[in-house]
Amino acid sequence: MVITISRQFGSGGREFARRLADALGYSYWDNEILTKCSQEGGIDEAYLQHVSQHGLANFYSSTIATRFSGRINNSLIQSAEATGQLCSTLRLIAQEDNCVIVGRAADAILGDLKPLRIFVHADRASRLRRCLDRCERKGEVETEKDIEHKMKTIDRGRERFYSLFSERKWGERENYDLCINTSGKVIKSLVPAFCVFVNELEKKS
Amino acid sequence: MVITISRQFGSGGREFARRLADALGYSYWDNEILTKCSQEGGIDEAYLQHVSQHGLANFYSSTIATRFSGRINNSLIQSAEATGQLCSTLRLIAQEDNCVIVGRAADAILGDLKPLRIFVHADRASRLRRCLDRCERKGEVETEKDIEHKMKTIDRGRERFYSLFSERKWGERENYDLCINTSGKVIKSLVPAFCVFVNELEKKS
Repeated sequence: MVITISRQFGSGGREFARRLADALGYSYWDNEILTKCSQEGGIDEAYLQHVSQHGLANFYSSTIATRFSGRINNSLIQSAEATGQLCSTLRLIAQEDNCVIVGRAADAILGDLKPLRIFVHADRASRLRRCLDRCERKGEVETEKDIEHKMKTIDRGRERFYSLFSERKWGERENYDLCINTSGKVIKSLVPAFCVFVNELEKKS
Repeated sequence: MVITISRQFGSGGREFARRLADALGYSYWDNEILTKCSQEGGIDEAYLQHVSQHGLANFYSSTIATRFSGRINNSLIQSAEATGQLCSTLRLIAQEDNCVIVGRAADAILGDLKPLRIFVHADRASRLRRCLDRCERKGEVETEKDIEHKMKTIDRGRERFYSLFSERKWGERENYDLCINTSGKVIKSLVPAFCVFVNELEKKS
């Protein structure tokens, strides 16, 4: 069973994914995907991070891009190699074990495996609140304006990255089995229900 | 606790709502709303049905519209009276008991009560299949073309009706706490998870 979790920045989707994986005893993949992908394909992890955050490699600093050892310095080809490697790595992960995969267009890339596709979202105020709380816990200083900017640009990057693998639009209801609105909800309290949901699906398959 | 269920035609949303209400021991309101609304406000039930299916009363046959006993024959005013009565009736229902309410823009009308808002949808092929199966069970004859036409016009009517009560768009992910995609799923198997979800919410409140 593969569960893919796409999420708006600040929606608590990552926390939900982590807790769901723990509760189900599934392996959990978020940034770990990039580390594995880098190990498998010898591609710079920071470069993979950049591609998966922005969708396009063209704007990537050539300083970092040339860290590719012995690879040609053409950003389109590099980006194609990186996304190709990401596909292979995601497939490996999905074959190894029951898993929860966060982001990286995994729902589109692994579409033929019929993953359970979840999208986690929340209203603007709720996402802002969650981000501010996180900053406070971490002792970081970010203004509301900074966070609003991040919310916009990060989600735009995710949307762009998704469009490399799908004709469909990132975040559109039709592409997911479940869309969960976390506005005003405690993430922890959502997990038991979705464990039951997954267990029912497992019974059927 | 009020649960509102909006649904695409053929998505199995009504079956889901009925089963969820049964499992939770909540009262169930679908066409029953119109009967109650008619009793409370002395408004013709067929007229209420028409308004809630089409969103506008303007096109309503004057023959039926004049069945309003002693009311003026102005379709806009009639429609305003009908929608006003619907609001009052929904509020009565919500105050009486824990309930599951299907359609009738209840999520928008009862928005201040913070209902759990669920939208049930499915892909076209899956909705068509579900409708054809239902016809077969009932011994009715409908062509695929008939059903496709119904799917389109009924959902367009729901969208239009919804717009009488909300600036937001019917079916848009942001307006719901949960969007459930029933494509390829057995409705019955979805219910236990959402009972857990509701129980967790009840604990919190």
